[in-house]
Amino acid sequence: MTERLHDPDYRGFASDNYAGIHPEVLVAIAAANEGHQVAYGEDVYTERLGEVIRREFGDDAEVFPVFNGTGANVVSLKSILPPWGAVIGTANAHIHTDEGGAPERIAGVKIYPVPVPHGKLTPELIATEAWGWGDEHRAQPLAVSITQSTELGTVYTPEEVRAVADYAHGNGMAVHMDGARLWNAAAALGVPFREFTSEAGVDILSLGGTKNGLLGVEAIVLIDPQAGTGLKYLRKLSMQLSSKMRFASAQLLALFEDAGDGSGDSLGIRSAKHANAMAALLRSKLDAGVADGSIRGLGFSQETQANAVFAELAPESADRIREKVRFYDWDRSLGQVRWMTAWDTTEADIDRFVAAVREELGA
Amino acid sequence: MTERLHDPDYRGFASDNYAGIHPEVLVAIAAANEGHQVAYGEDVYTERLGEVIRREFGDDAEVFPVFNGTGANVVSLKSILPPWGAVIGTANAHIHTDEGGAPERIAGVKIYPVPVPHGKLTPELIATEAWGWGDEHRAQPLAVSITQSTELGTVYTPEEVRAVADYAHGNGMAVHMDGARLWNAAAALGVPFREFTSEAGVDILSLGGTKNGLLGVEAIVLIDPQAGTGLKYLRKLSMQLSSKMRFASAQLLALFEDAGDGSGDSLGIRSAKHANAMAALLRSKLDAGVADGSIRGLGFSQETQANAVFAELAPESADRIREKVRFYDWDRSLGQVRWMTAWDTTEADIDRFVAAVREELGA
Amino acid sequence: MTERLHDPDYRGFASDNYAGIHPEVLVAIAAANEGHQVAYGEDVYTERLGEVIRREFGDDAEVFPVFNGTGANVVSLKSILPPWGAVIGTANAHIHTDEGGAPERIAGVKIYPVPVPHGKLTPELIATEAWGWGDEHRAQPLAVSITQSTELGTVYTPEEVRAVADYAHGNGMAVHMDGARLWNAAAALGVPFREFTSEAGVDILSLGGTKNGLLGVEAIVLIDPQAGTGLKYLRKLSMQLSSKMRFASAQLLALFEDAGDGSGDSLGIRSAKHANAMAALLRSKLDAGVADGSIRGLGFSQETQANAVFAELAPESADRIREKVRFYDWDRSLGQVRWMTAWDTTEADIDRFVAAVREELGA
Amino acid sequence: MTERLHDPDYRGFASDNYAGIHPEVLVAIAAANEGHQVAYGEDVYTERLGEVIRREFGDDAEVFPVFNGTGANVVSLKSILPPWGAVIGTANAHIHTDEGGAPERIAGVKIYPVPVPHGKLTPELIATEAWGWGDEHRAQPLAVSITQSTELGTVYTPEEVRAVADYAHGNGMAVHMDGARLWNAAAALGVPFREFTSEAGVDILSLGGTKNGLLGVEAIVLIDPQAGTGLKYLRKLSMQLSSKMRFASAQLLALFEDAGDGSGDSLGIRSAKHANAMAALLRSKLDAGVADGSIRGLGFSQETQANAVFAELAPESADRIREKVRFYDWDRSLGQVRWMTAWDTTEADIDRFVAAVREELGA
Repeated sequence: MTERLHDPDYRGFASDNYAGIHPEVLVAIAAANEGHQVAYGEDVYTERLGEVIRREFGDDAEVFPVFNGTGANVVSLKSILPPWGAVIGTANAHIHTDEGGAPERIAGVKIYPVPVPHGKLTPELIATEAWGWGDEHRAQPLAVSITQSTELGTVYTPEEVRAVADYAHGNGMAVHMDGARLWNAAAALGVPFREFTSEAGVDILSLGGTKNGLLGVEAIVLIDPQAGTGLKYLRKLSMQLSSKMRFASAQLLALFEDAGDGSGDSLGIRSAKHANAMAALLRSKLDAGVADGSIRGLGFSQETQANAVFAELAPESADRIREKVRFYDWDRSLGQVRWMTAWDTTEADIDRFVAAVREELGA
Repeated sequence: MTERLHDPDYRGFASDNYAGIHPEVLVAIAAANEGHQVAYGEDVYTERLGEVIRREFGDDAEVFPVFNGTGANVVSLKSILPPWGAVIGTANAHIHTDEGGAPERIAGVKIYPVPVPHGKLTPELIATEAWGWGDEHRAQPLAVSITQSTELGTVYTPEEVRAVADYAHGNGMAVHMDGARLWNAAAALGVPFREFTSEAGVDILSLGGTKNGLLGVEAIVLIDPQAGTGLKYLRKLSMQLSSKMRFASAQLLALFEDAGDGSGDSLGIRSAKHANAMAALLRSKLDAGVADGSIRGLGFSQETQANAVFAELAPESADRIREKVRFYDWDRSLGQVRWMTAWDTTEADIDRFVAAVREELGA
Repeated sequence: MTERLHDPDYRGFASDNYAGIHPEVLVAIAAANEGHQVAYGEDVYTERLGEVIRREFGDDAEVFPVFNGTGANVVSLKSILPPWGAVIGTANAHIHTDEGGAPERIAGVKIYPVPVPHGKLTPELIATEAWGWGDEHRAQPLAVSITQSTELGTVYTPEEVRAVADYAHGNGMAVHMDGARLWNAAAALGVPFREFTSEAGVDILSLGGTKNGLLGVEAIVLIDPQAGTGLKYLRKLSMQLSSKMRFASAQLLALFEDAGDGSGDSLGIRSAKHANAMAALLRSKLDAGVADGSIRGLGFSQETQANAVFAELAPESADRIREKVRFYDWDRSLGQVRWMTAWDTTEADIDRFVAAVREELGA
Repeated sequence: MTERLHDPDYRGFASDNYAGIHPEVLVAIAAANEGHQVAYGEDVYTERLGEVIRREFGDDAEVFPVFNGTGANVVSLKSILPPWGAVIGTANAHIHTDEGGAPERIAGVKIYPVPVPHGKLTPELIATEAWGWGDEHRAQPLAVSITQSTELGTVYTPEEVRAVADYAHGNGMAVHMDGARLWNAAAALGVPFREFTSEAGVDILSLGGTKNGLLGVEAIVLIDPQAGTGLKYLRKLSMQLSSKMRFASAQLLALFEDAGDGSGDSLGIRSAKHANAMAALLRSKLDAGVADGSIRGLGFSQETQANAVFAELAPESADRIREKVRFYDWDRSLGQVRWMTAWDTTEADIDRFVAAVREELGA
């Protein structure tokens, strides 16, 4: 018999992918089960997903479920770039720092990393690498990739996305958005996806799911079909084509369904709002302690706009707190750490964590 | 609310990956849910999986869950071959015919395809491409890949695997087994995995799960740690690393658990035995019809040793039967079709299908 | 001071690339020397080469000099295939057997090798692998590659090329010609290049030079600019862009210049005719010996249409002859060897070699 | 007949690869011509080259001639890195800025570019990217690449190379030196190659030739055979294996031969000393003009240590000077230009160029 091997009551602040499957997503998986469905995407759940994606992202949008965020990013970039293309991203973009070199090795994509203070590109920052078109010696910068919400927990406004996209398009470059935490961005902005994606000029999107309560699914959304090519083939040859795709699509569909709590929010937005709120709560409680002097030696390197708190404290202090609750260093040389909240973080979790911080840094 | 969009009572003979998730696997997923677990494989389910794999495949075996069979095959091949390596396989091997060129494009692996009559390599067949070592003009044949059970529904005996492995090793080549249907092979042979894998000389294995009732998980099993290198990194950079790996591992674990029916069989073996039995039943009923003349114009191109029946009939007849129950052509120019059974195929399904065949080909 | 380290009087039958630089090519290199010329192809020699290529291959033809034949083939294939494309070639095509897997590893091109008896593809042979378009599981066959003259010393007639091209184009596939020995083919056919390339439907061409007396230059000729894309960038990123390109272009130009012997032939045709004639002479002398019984145990597996003689004899006999004059086994298991002639082979060389064969196989 | 199409008296300051072939190198090519030599490196010139390289770089050194600098760099990096490796280089390294993405696309190598002021890495600068070993999410930094002389015309001292190498080796990283202008560095330092390569800890080297008077040859020198693997195969599959290699090796040999001018210098050192001296002359004449006020609006962004002068002036002024003598902008937004000298630059060329500068910027 199948045993539970773990403690279901433990929750930390290491990553939103340490959390499990939202119970309503499990229900969706079970609903899609039983009987035979055509494999590789010719099933009714994937068909329905296509409708939902067009509703949310525009009439021409096409959706391609994949296994993980690296897959979504790499296949997206390959579809919008010729074999001689390069992408401009931030120096702390996931595609540059956390994908084991997959963009380069699997898609043959050159990355021009641009140092940025708060995780966000601007036209001026992009311009530092946007040059050299027509010179075969220079890998051709033909795409820009931005992350929403960013790796630093900040969020692009629709206007900021638009400015990036206008600059990119004006220079012949396509726009990719890494939306591993797109739901958190939408929840933070309080606007429909369209306003900061399709209508703001994004051409292709990595739509996250796993960090927002799915078992493990992301999707490529090709917003402008002219911008990308061959996704059907690229997904397969990049080893990102699921045979039992009905379950991938059913999970993604679940995020777009009404949360049933009377708010009118979808399950995905409800979950992301919760995660964001927990980060805000953590930040406000710690801010308060810093302000009243009851917590010392703690600072913050980024605004808390989504579900991440970027804090600064002495590494040894961080290590002692970590013995109680797991989280990651961000830049140990700078004493920066990252505290992530998730769809299942509770207020009690926050209280326990704040208590642990106070125990270490309390005045 | 999450709706069921499909007919849960329809089952065809197109592929074992048209079937869904075994109910006990769903239970295992739910058991692994709730609370936080370290992502990317540092969880207790993956730890337990490692123990089970060592028990089944040998004390040195290492396991790396991945998303799909193409991922398992490609990453396996990359780990056992240097950048100048090539693999010898059959001309109808999945790696050559059904992976969209992923081995070549993602792993940079050259394939030497060898035409074979019944899906199985032998030392003599391998020898036709096993030459040219030391000549840099020839992509170096340094691995052999065999499929168990084969793409043609046949099964290597342990002795046949051993013969291949001895020849390969004697010539400095490693042995990869594509075990997308390894459970069906084990069920057919009636022997433990070890007898036709580790003990027969296989160095690395793609261990299937999806076709035997999982939502979507396969695993690489590195049987001989000296044979492969860098799997930790290769899995990640090949975009096959799952964040919420506890669910992948829990699914695989479910297959190795006791089926609870008093047989002593694991769930995986029980499911595979059932699928094999359904194929045998289909074949025997059709054979009987052919023998007594009540079915005409039907032949068989392969023995039915696992869960596939390879039949020969007029393409137009096949098309008319297909209007009732879905299945694939294998080689339309030869009038060959493939009928696959799955863990959830029922005797009633077989009866309905035989009736459909009789309606078309009945004398 | 620069010394000569080798014996300038030794010539064997191993390969036409064992021969050196034609003296008139050395003169051309010296003529292009001195002073500064813009690097990477913006020089006057490359400009002139463009004119010559248009004259020879059609008004739209574009030329891209590269370093070697593998480079020409791989970059050509990459330019005419999308990342999901595959090429159909013969099982003894240089791209499959002698390029160390470069097409797969460098260009990500899948090869479908077709066994052929005499080195030449036909529509019927191509058809065995030309199927599965639209199915993402199958690497898409979108190009056909033929070699002229073939690896077996045979030559496609213009009509044979046309038949291949018509079939390919009719099925949405582009046509690549590996012309490492294109000059030998042209010399054998006695027709302009156009008749069996541009006018016969070839889309892109690897134009050989090295085997016909150059120091080391080949060129990609894109005959139909619609068929290929990005060659400017692909050549560079494939590490095939020469800085001092004036010397590459000057060498190629030399082949197209009048031979100055009153024949009206170009230097390239004159050299190739000579090499072909030497192979024919060798073959005829040996044929005569076989016919009159004075040579025993010698046969021929291919017609001698260009500058190669494919012979069959006992491997031990071959080894003893090889002690005197170097050449290669072709397929030792079949007792097949290859004897190549070059632009510098002399009648005396032929006589010495025939004498060596007679000493071993004389009756 | 072969015509000269260009003006042999024009020389500019755009690049050292605008220059042609040194006359003594042409003599070496001719000396290696005639008769047959085994192709692909089994010739006597390549054998002799091996001896010379061992004499110059150490008893274990192995040499692999290739076609160009990109080829030398990319194949070198591939040989010293596993498929999950990354290389740390400067942000203006040729491998990052001028190879069309070849390292990423052809070798699958991830690059971590580090901004540096004068083209040179130090342990402190390397340390900014040298971390994360063992974490499969981070492309593993396992090599450091430095350029000698640098892309900015500066030269590492042997001590500086040693510091980089010690740091790299101490952290498990191999050291690659891009020596496209290694001769200029050796000439500038006035020490044998060994002192700043093998004896300073360099593991693998791209040895330039083309920029120092060859027709077009570079070489990979594997100084520590333990540091690299499979070069024989990697060179071939990377399309960098020359068939008529005797000519590549003969050219390289020519650079190592005594210049015959009584100085004891080799031809390569004599040529590089001359190029360096011409750059120094240009710089000193311009410095003098700036110092005495007769030239205005001219500055220099780098020291002139080898054969490059990096100047700063108004872009429009640069454009007007360029109408008379060709050269490249380096960073137009900063008004930086690059003036290169070559083995064939004359004092008269310098005088003419200084006059052109004075005409534009004269007070």
